[in-house]
Amino acid sequence: MLNQSRVVIDAVKPQINCGEFFIKRVVNEIVNVDANVLVDGHDVIATSVLFKHEKSKKWNEVRMHEVGNDEWKASFSVEKQGFYTYKVQGWVDYALNWQHGIDRKIDDNQHVKSELLEGITYLEPLLKKGTKEEKDYLQYCIDCFKDDSKYNDAIKEAMSSQLHLIFTKYPEKLLANESKALQVYVDRKKARFSTWYEFFPRSASEVEGQHGTFADCERLLPRVKQMGFDTLYFPPVHPIGEVNRKGKNNTTEAKDGDAGSAWGIGSKHGGHKDLHPQLGSVEDFKKLIKEAKKQNIEIAMDYALQAAPDHPWVDSHPDWFKWRPDGTVQYAENPPKKYQDILPIYWESKDYKNLWKECLDTMLYWVDCGVNVFRVDNPHTKPYYFWNWLITEVKKKHPDVLFLAEAFTRPKVMQQLAKQGYTQSYTYFTWRNSKQEFEDYLTELTQTDQREYMQPNFWPNTPDINPYHLQGANETKYLQRYALAATLSSSIGIYGPVFEQMIDDAIPGKEEYYMSEKFEVKHYDWFKESKLTLLISKINALRHENEALQQTNNIKFLNIENENIIAFYKWNDDRTNELLIIISLDQYYAQQGNVQLPLDNLGIAVGHRVQVQDLITASSYNWHSEWNYVELHPALPFHIFKINK
Amino acid sequence: MLNQSRVVIDAVKPQINCGEFFIKRVVNEIVNVDANVLVDGHDVIATSVLFKHEKSKKWNEVRMHEVGNDEWKASFSVEKQGFYTYKVQGWVDYALNWQHGIDRKIDDNQHVKSELLEGITYLEPLLKKGTKEEKDYLQYCIDCFKDDSKYNDAIKEAMSSQLHLIFTKYPEKLLANESKALQVYVDRKKARFSTWYEFFPRSASEVEGQHGTFADCERLLPRVKQMGFDTLYFPPVHPIGEVNRKGKNNTTEAKDGDAGSAWGIGSKHGGHKDLHPQLGSVEDFKKLIKEAKKQNIEIAMDYALQAAPDHPWVDSHPDWFKWRPDGTVQYAENPPKKYQDILPIYWESKDYKNLWKECLDTMLYWVDCGVNVFRVDNPHTKPYYFWNWLITEVKKKHPDVLFLAEAFTRPKVMQQLAKQGYTQSYTYFTWRNSKQEFEDYLTELTQTDQREYMQPNFWPNTPDINPYHLQGANETKYLQRYALAATLSSSIGIYGPVFEQMIDDAIPGKEEYYMSEKFEVKHYDWFKESKLTLLISKINALRHENEALQQTNNIKFLNIENENIIAFYKWNDDRTNELLIIISLDQYYAQQGNVQLPLDNLGIAVGHRVQVQDLITASSYNWHSEWNYVELHPALPFHIFKINK
Repeated sequence: MLNQSRVVIDAVKPQINCGEFFIKRVVNEIVNVDANVLVDGHDVIATSVLFKHEKSKKWNEVRMHEVGNDEWKASFSVEKQGFYTYKVQGWVDYALNWQHGIDRKIDDNQHVKSELLEGITYLEPLLKKGTKEEKDYLQYCIDCFKDDSKYNDAIKEAMSSQLHLIFTKYPEKLLANESKALQVYVDRKKARFSTWYEFFPRSASEVEGQHGTFADCERLLPRVKQMGFDTLYFPPVHPIGEVNRKGKNNTTEAKDGDAGSAWGIGSKHGGHKDLHPQLGSVEDFKKLIKEAKKQNIEIAMDYALQAAPDHPWVDSHPDWFKWRPDGTVQYAENPPKKYQDILPIYWESKDYKNLWKECLDTMLYWVDCGVNVFRVDNPHTKPYYFWNWLITEVKKKHPDVLFLAEAFTRPKVMQQLAKQGYTQSYTYFTWRNSKQEFEDYLTELTQTDQREYMQPNFWPNTPDINPYHLQGANETKYLQRYALAATLSSSIGIYGPVFEQMIDDAIPGKEEYYMSEKFEVKHYDWFKESKLTLLISKINALRHENEALQQTNNIKFLNIENENIIAFYKWNDDRTNELLIIISLDQYYAQQGNVQLPLDNLGIAVGHRVQVQDLITASSYNWHSEWNYVELHPALPFHIFKINK
Repeated sequence: MLNQSRVVIDAVKPQINCGEFFIKRVVNEIVNVDANVLVDGHDVIATSVLFKHEKSKKWNEVRMHEVGNDEWKASFSVEKQGFYTYKVQGWVDYALNWQHGIDRKIDDNQHVKSELLEGITYLEPLLKKGTKEEKDYLQYCIDCFKDDSKYNDAIKEAMSSQLHLIFTKYPEKLLANESKALQVYVDRKKARFSTWYEFFPRSASEVEGQHGTFADCERLLPRVKQMGFDTLYFPPVHPIGEVNRKGKNNTTEAKDGDAGSAWGIGSKHGGHKDLHPQLGSVEDFKKLIKEAKKQNIEIAMDYALQAAPDHPWVDSHPDWFKWRPDGTVQYAENPPKKYQDILPIYWESKDYKNLWKECLDTMLYWVDCGVNVFRVDNPHTKPYYFWNWLITEVKKKHPDVLFLAEAFTRPKVMQQLAKQGYTQSYTYFTWRNSKQEFEDYLTELTQTDQREYMQPNFWPNTPDINPYHLQGANETKYLQRYALAATLSSSIGIYGPVFEQMIDDAIPGKEEYYMSEKFEVKHYDWFKESKLTLLISKINALRHENEALQQTNNIKFLNIENENIIAFYKWNDDRTNELLIIISLDQYYAQQGNVQLPLDNLGIAVGHRVQVQDLITASSYNWHSEWNYVELHPALPFHIFKINK
């Protein structure tokens, strides 16, 4: 096939897997597009990014500018939820090329009569476009170009910036070429900026020894709100299996009265569309969701696709499970380990279409009940293409729904789940500790392609992970972990009140909680105040007040001459909010160092006075140098400085 | 659309522009394929590369192996010219997964009766495949698995490597997934390994003042062969325009008898399908091509798509040129510069289909005359898609034809021409000088994607470029430039006898030859011998004897404690030919240093004796250390060592 276009468009970015996957943004964010655009020879080319929302018929256009080495750039802002399409268009701009040539010839004192006549061919088509003023001007130019007696006026107008502007405004895109169309999916803002609190509803009772209810959870909403959390995530609230139920501390035999694991879903009381009877009715649950919404808290549900042996599906849809030659059903295994309280779904089932449909229906049922956020349990043990399909189907009807992938697994698996459509991802933050580790990991998340499709959610702890560094740690360490999570990532979460009450008994040698709440009902003093709770609340308030903390990608690590202090600069897109964050990684001793201000990024020269204001203590400092002394004590091991220039 | 496969294949490499362009190989080379292959959960997966030649109906299969972090690798060899297709296939291997599980359970002393029965479902389908011996073995296993009294034999066979081998040999590819199909184009060996000599046929006469002929060129063939060149490239041999002909030393007015620029093509004597009358007839040209072939020399023709003002096309196809409003034809310009002896082709022509066809016909005409190698003049000033089409059309009929892109221009433009199909590319070697520059440039060419699609051709000089470092340089410098080109790149060329006779008068301040042969007939002592001609011949002979020098990508730079010495290790694919090359970059003084042997690559330990044999002087050295002393003198500023382990 012959393609007469002379323009080649290559290496359009962002682009994930050749456009197989969309990139991600939230409303009002920017997409920076970059492409190599080439033409043979020396002619002047022009390029645009064309973009449109899926519901719009008209393309919007933004001109690209060359940054050198045949690389062109432009940005556009996404204002509505849903899919946008974007592509790069390039063409030889013969009019601009003509002006570029005649400019140089006139400078060289060449006679350009023939060139002026040629110019008329570029001006005439524009007489049909443009404002009256522009048309008058074009007609005036044409008259001059034709009239030998007006040669001096003609060459003046041929070179004029007014003519250049008109050419730029009304390009004739002859033989233009276009890149493949790519997609960006735009979510509501919470996809990028969310502060999660996880607790077990069954432990929410005021009365020790009593099973918590949704009504008890409602009572705790003001506390959650006061601490600054906006997403309240519950482990599964479905009926808990009674066959092979786990006992306390993960023992294989439950005793009478043992509550069992919330993730062992399904019993005679129902399955994934039902609620555990002791928690309350679906009306209670809907009321809780509604009450939470009033306080700007969203309830996030756990979506765990697995079944207890007494889950209703086992009888109603035996094809959705694997059956062994001896007639028994296949329980979960990771040989030689066995998990007899859990049946995995048999994804190879011939009846997989009905299975997928039921999984979708289940999620849509809870969406109809008011749930718009799902934390998906172990998504990496279910097929990738299933998730892609499920998320696509749900989003088609309910674009507000968000999906957090609980996949603590290998890097490429985590990345693939994000590519396939997950809104947010659990990360390795839980195990990162040294300055080098944080800098390397954040660089990977924010400066590679991952920034375009993977939105991290940083958790200092979860019911599954009691990290070694928190076991027996002091309050300073907890403060540091929270401050790190909350300033490095715009989405974060804690498992409470275990975290803020520093409950960290572990099974010896393991990163697991001793007598874990996963297997029993606990009792807490829910309203206990401490320095930790106060500072968590304060940091969460700062996250709401400072746009720089509401995204993850705008980060630059700063030099500081101390391996026990990490320092970084964060900003919002229009740089109206700039923060300097300095965190000590030493939980026992004071640490000092000189931090280097990012003068280039701040757009200031050495000697320019900068005021940094500590948003926790309200103290201010005036800095005149590029390098500035800071000192951090275990009592308050971090600065969150606002930069005033 | 529902996709039930559980396997995801990502990041298949090599892959250029999402498969838009093919990668390049020559016959008998290797393609190393790399992919990320993932499955949900813990099941055992298997992956293969499938590949086939365009004329074959059957896919060949080679199993991939995992190298960690979900990355899989395999290699295949391409044996025939033309296109091969390759793709990656992955599947959960349920049989191997079953064996992996039962292995672990038996190790854990679990009773596996149910697992043995399950195993039968994987064994039974294989009874239809395999050799008699394999079938007998499978039947024996099935009998044991069924028979409780043979439990001990059963678990022994369940874990057996014999069973593992049968499973691996006859995989059941249930719900397999496949990557997109990609292409590799395989050329004849000369595409990668060629040694070019360029001279002007019109200067080939024995008699001073007389215009050379094809017959004179024939007389020079033994000399070209004796010096070890296999490709003899002539600047254009077509009729030279008489209108606006350039004079000597690039003056705008030719005097009577001035020969003009060979690139000003077309006159009353004809155009691109004709020969300059003073050189001889088409029969003379065909005879020369034939004689050359007998001596294993191929004649490379210049393909320069532009016209002198008196080219026949200007009358016969006025639409192929641009006409100015004043009725004159548009000559070449790069404002404010004018080139009135040259008319560019008007690629925007409405008659472009006929134009493209005539360009193709022209090339096919010369192919029919016996030319199989084209050096294309300034391809970056003609449309990229035109080249893609032209090269594709020519290769369809004549896969032996090779294309060298003479594009000394911006990096992305050079890369794009290579992507669009050019076999070989001129490079920046001509201007690279320091050790750091060579290492950086070769790393870019051989360790990035460019290695897959761009085959460099290194030229120390061309009629267009008399580089500053050669102007007034001594013989050592010429030796260094030739040795560098000839060992760093498998395709190289020189413009002679200017190069080997060290003719380097320059226009002051420019990298251009003074009184350039481009604009006049020269006279040379064609058979002059010198140390330079002897060493060029010797190096060329070594290139033919050592496979390590017949490809460019297998290179590793070695540490040597001297910025004036560059050292590198080169090898052929099966490591039966390993070279150590050490070149001084100092043209005046001796240089010494200790070079570090690449022990890991050589597969030897410290203390192992290595014999290095200088292939120029035939001296041998025994080295026992990792670091070894070398000294280079201006008289012979390089070592080409063969490594004997």
